[in-house]
Amino acid sequence: MKEAIFSGMRPTGSLHIGHYLGVLENWKILQENYKCFFGIVDWHALTTKWQDSADLKAYIEEMLAEWLSCGIDPKKSTIILQSLVPEHVHLHMVLSMLTPVSWLERNPTVKEQARELGIEEQLTYGHLGYPVLMAADILIYKSKKVPVGIDQVPHLEMTREIARRFNFHYKEIFPEPEALLAEFPKLLGVDGRKMSKSYNNAIYLKDDEKSVNEKVASMITDPERIKKTDPGHPDVCNVFSYYGVLFKSELFQVRERCEKAQIGCVDCKKQLAKKINEILEPIRSQRNYYLSHKDMLWDILKSGSNSASSYCKNTIREVYEAMKLNYPI
Amino acid sequence: MKEAIFSGMRPTGSLHIGHYLGVLENWKILQENYKCFFGIVDWHALTTKWQDSADLKAYIEEMLAEWLSCGIDPKKSTIILQSLVPEHVHLHMVLSMLTPVSWLERNPTVKEQARELGIEEQLTYGHLGYPVLMAADILIYKSKKVPVGIDQVPHLEMTREIARRFNFHYKEIFPEPEALLAEFPKLLGVDGRKMSKSYNNAIYLKDDEKSVNEKVASMITDPERIKKTDPGHPDVCNVFSYYGVLFKSELFQVRERCEKAQIGCVDCKKQLAKKINEILEPIRSQRNYYLSHKDMLWDILKSGSNSASSYCKNTIREVYEAMKLNYPI
Repeated sequence: MKEAIFSGMRPTGSLHIGHYLGVLENWKILQENYKCFFGIVDWHALTTKWQDSADLKAYIEEMLAEWLSCGIDPKKSTIILQSLVPEHVHLHMVLSMLTPVSWLERNPTVKEQARELGIEEQLTYGHLGYPVLMAADILIYKSKKVPVGIDQVPHLEMTREIARRFNFHYKEIFPEPEALLAEFPKLLGVDGRKMSKSYNNAIYLKDDEKSVNEKVASMITDPERIKKTDPGHPDVCNVFSYYGVLFKSELFQVRERCEKAQIGCVDCKKQLAKKINEILEPIRSQRNYYLSHKDMLWDILKSGSNSASSYCKNTIREVYEAMKLNYPI
Repeated sequence: MKEAIFSGMRPTGSLHIGHYLGVLENWKILQENYKCFFGIVDWHALTTKWQDSADLKAYIEEMLAEWLSCGIDPKKSTIILQSLVPEHVHLHMVLSMLTPVSWLERNPTVKEQARELGIEEQLTYGHLGYPVLMAADILIYKSKKVPVGIDQVPHLEMTREIARRFNFHYKEIFPEPEALLAEFPKLLGVDGRKMSKSYNNAIYLKDDEKSVNEKVASMITDPERIKKTDPGHPDVCNVFSYYGVLFKSELFQVRERCEKAQIGCVDCKKQLAKKINEILEPIRSQRNYYLSHKDMLWDILKSGSNSASSYCKNTIREVYEAMKLNYPI
């Protein structure tokens, strides 16, 4: 049997091409080789957005539509909605009991998030405990590998520590999952900063042709290239880095044309925008199709979650046996 | 329909006559007048005893056998095992998201417990969050009243605050439960300190005749009464306080015989022990009966928990509707 892998995303907004290239393209490779469980983790969305719970349903539908449009295939992968797989919550409860608060208080991410959100004073119990929930998400599938970005490696370390603690005190049940680093380099936002919803600098999968053209046109290129006849320095140009990620095969030509001042930045951007639109066009149309077939989306989530739930019941049974909580009922 | 009430006990050891008089006698009155849900709260036991999970099964069986022996009637009350009613855990998850960590950190009980258990450094996430779980236990039944001892009133205040916060942010769903104070006075341990397993000073429901005789014989009486002919001072005598709680109708006679030195302490204790044994005898024999019919115990827990789960599903539905998480599945 194929090895199981879990990976998830918080349904808190539209996906951008950074997600597509950095995560979904990777998942598409994984789904050919592993037994993949991909989760829309709605409990995690509530850890920071509990007051905005009313937005969640639409975000879930959008996220699934975008996953499917990018090629995540429910025939190859099991797509779940976290709150529809109660075993996540049950294992979370068990792991809560053995995870020291001090481990969670040392977590730099939660403090940073709380500061960014201006909720330091009002950090909630669920938010403090999200690494425990994340550990449950991963361990319930006994994943040996977890696809994460390099910045998430420390989070995974907590999952490994929790697994170790369970294994030590009760019984060796859980593998200590290892990071499966994605190879895709990160795309920056159109303003050259990290691509992020809060900076409003992302190119979204849902952006229409006009928006993409405008966003690409606004990108900052080589600041030393004043006139079109000046030779450019592609290595400091964000437009060039997009070519590097999206169209590797043309990279040599693009560099040459820029350094020899054979093409101006305006045209170079137009070409980039055209190419991005070519990638996004089929995704957009599929996205629209799925979003006008919401019943289909919920059927996929229901069927994936049910199947994951059956799978997870085995782990829960083992956990309860190890703890001698296998009551005769 | 009768008003719902939830009350629970942690399965962490044998019950003593303090539990019988202070809690179970009260529950017996309540079960005649309310729709009572009485819970063996095994998740709560794990908050402090996660390393001893292997003891839990036997403690659960013993607790139920003792409840039944004392007159808690599954035909009148719904008896549940917390971990068999998943709705407790689901509501706990929801309430986790909106409960500030600062509320939990201010809880004096958890700090005290951690100090007593010598686990200050290793306070776990589940232990820190037990008031959130307690809130879920109570609110899932929409109890308007909660039978508690006077010392537990502050805990209930947190449940009320959590209910208020949910009601304010989403929709008015939960009553703010009020304390239903038990009228029974507390019995002290045989050494005059608080009756407690850790002091080894309790008279247990399971104690045989001989143990009861020995424990009562060890009780400290009026220290100023040296000889049998000295008049006694019943108001400083722990034996007399037992008469006061257990055999109110004879209180006047007992006082008179003591103050007039008509009876010695040894005989007075023998009479008390005899009376306690008369109370415990039928409880003991029923306890033994139930403990030799464990299938029956688990059937009661299973059937009560299933019925509670159906009841709780309505609350969960309302909660998800209020939060707009009523997904179309």
